[in-house]
Amino acid sequence: MPRYALKIEYDGGPFAGWQRQADQPSVQGAVEAALARLEPGPHTIAAAGRTDAGVHALGQVAQADLGKDWDPFRLSEALNWHLKPMPIAVLEAALVDDAWHARFSAVERRYLFRLVVRRAPVTHLKGRVWQVQNPLDTEAMRAGAAALVGRHDFTTFRSVMCQAKSPVKTLDEIRIEERAVNGGVEIRFHLRARSFLHNQVRSIVGTLERVGAGSWAPERVVEALAAQDRAACGPVCPPEGLYLAGVGYPEDPFARGWAAS
Amino acid sequence: MPRYALKIEYDGGPFAGWQRQADQPSVQGAVEAALARLEPGPHTIAAAGRTDAGVHALGQVAQADLGKDWDPFRLSEALNWHLKPMPIAVLEAALVDDAWHARFSAVERRYLFRLVVRRAPVTHLKGRVWQVQNPLDTEAMRAGAAALVGRHDFTTFRSVMCQAKSPVKTLDEIRIEERAVNGGVEIRFHLRARSFLHNQVRSIVGTLERVGAGSWAPERVVEALAAQDRAACGPVCPPEGLYLAGVGYPEDPFARGWAAS
Repeated sequence: MPRYALKIEYDGGPFAGWQRQADQPSVQGAVEAALARLEPGPHTIAAAGRTDAGVHALGQVAQADLGKDWDPFRLSEALNWHLKPMPIAVLEAALVDDAWHARFSAVERRYLFRLVVRRAPVTHLKGRVWQVQNPLDTEAMRAGAAALVGRHDFTTFRSVMCQAKSPVKTLDEIRIEERAVNGGVEIRFHLRARSFLHNQVRSIVGTLERVGAGSWAPERVVEALAAQDRAACGPVCPPEGLYLAGVGYPEDPFARGWAAS
Repeated sequence: MPRYALKIEYDGGPFAGWQRQADQPSVQGAVEAALARLEPGPHTIAAAGRTDAGVHALGQVAQADLGKDWDPFRLSEALNWHLKPMPIAVLEAALVDDAWHARFSAVERRYLFRLVVRRAPVTHLKGRVWQVQNPLDTEAMRAGAAALVGRHDFTTFRSVMCQAKSPVKTLDEIRIEERAVNGGVEIRFHLRARSFLHNQVRSIVGTLERVGAGSWAPERVVEALAAQDRAACGPVCPPEGLYLAGVGYPEDPFARGWAAS
């Protein structure tokens, strides 16, 4: 059975998350249903990151095993046709080796968190960003973030429901970017690691927001990390600002194939 | 009666346009209803640009006459409270002279049109941009646009329903910007004039898209303009990519006042 890699963008708002659920709409369920319109199912696809309810993706990567050989371009077009009008789009498709796995072959995940600081409620960005109303000190957040980069026990920054065997992860980068948006400021957090713990990004951004607001000194992030205690974490921020931005593999599966753009 | 200038952002999607209508939701109607929660109405507000159904605003400017003196900050906060959960936000409010008029004092309107070129359907940008699937030649569009800058009879580029006395307008600028977006390219058209005819921006962008697609040579824009004939226009593009970006006055009414950001 030929295996295909799919690069998928979605608006997480209407979904209970990536993972298929019996009684709620999910991104996985929607893509599997679209695949079943092409070839009789059931289909079971696997993804690099199982995003939570409300979390978006710009470059989720999933794999699908199909019975017949599909031209990757036609496969992506057919899936997009059957996914309409849901806010899920297959950006690229590529034929991959049987040994390639969307989740287990991945060596890097990139997340983007969008935070908007503005007094007036956001309109066009509603559901796309986390909005706060009071100014944030970006430099203080950068100082707090610096303490988290590297290999650490991230017990403080993971959900109690996290199923990872070890809380030790290597965070390769937290880059904090500031840009003007209509009537306010957008702060973009770019995080990069081989893999993340459950709720790790939202726990980190929620904590750094406290630093930016002046409620926490940057040093308190160091202490929270060292505590290895979930209770030492700042508030977990809401999902609507979070995007799975991209997934890295030793060799880019889409480089050889057809690109939707 | 003190007069206030309001800078307003909105998502035009759910509205039949700016202008109040008896039986359909409008932005004007929503803002007037919010004002009526602050002071008994009826209220009648005037705006710099009467945007059509589905057209957005980043910086619409309206005026409201109120009975009592409001602190501009509190006025904007109270209006935003009563506008929830509609996608309309008052970004700034300012006290202005009685002689100042949102529409008649305006000396410049700025429009932005967002066009996305991408194969896969847009998800996060749905309703915020006009999407086309085939590549566009930005340089050819710039060549076509250059012919439209300056003082011309824009009969070709105005709706037959346009109520302006004269079709002669001076278009001060069309700037075309290109940027990468997820899986594609966004082309932003920035147009600036003292005032615009009805459907002028959408008629121009729809025509330039034909140039970018290669269906029209850039010179055909010159001929279309010279024809002074609505039938010579390219297709009028859809409203969802259009934003009233800002309004200029001899003196910025918001410069003296409080800024929401």
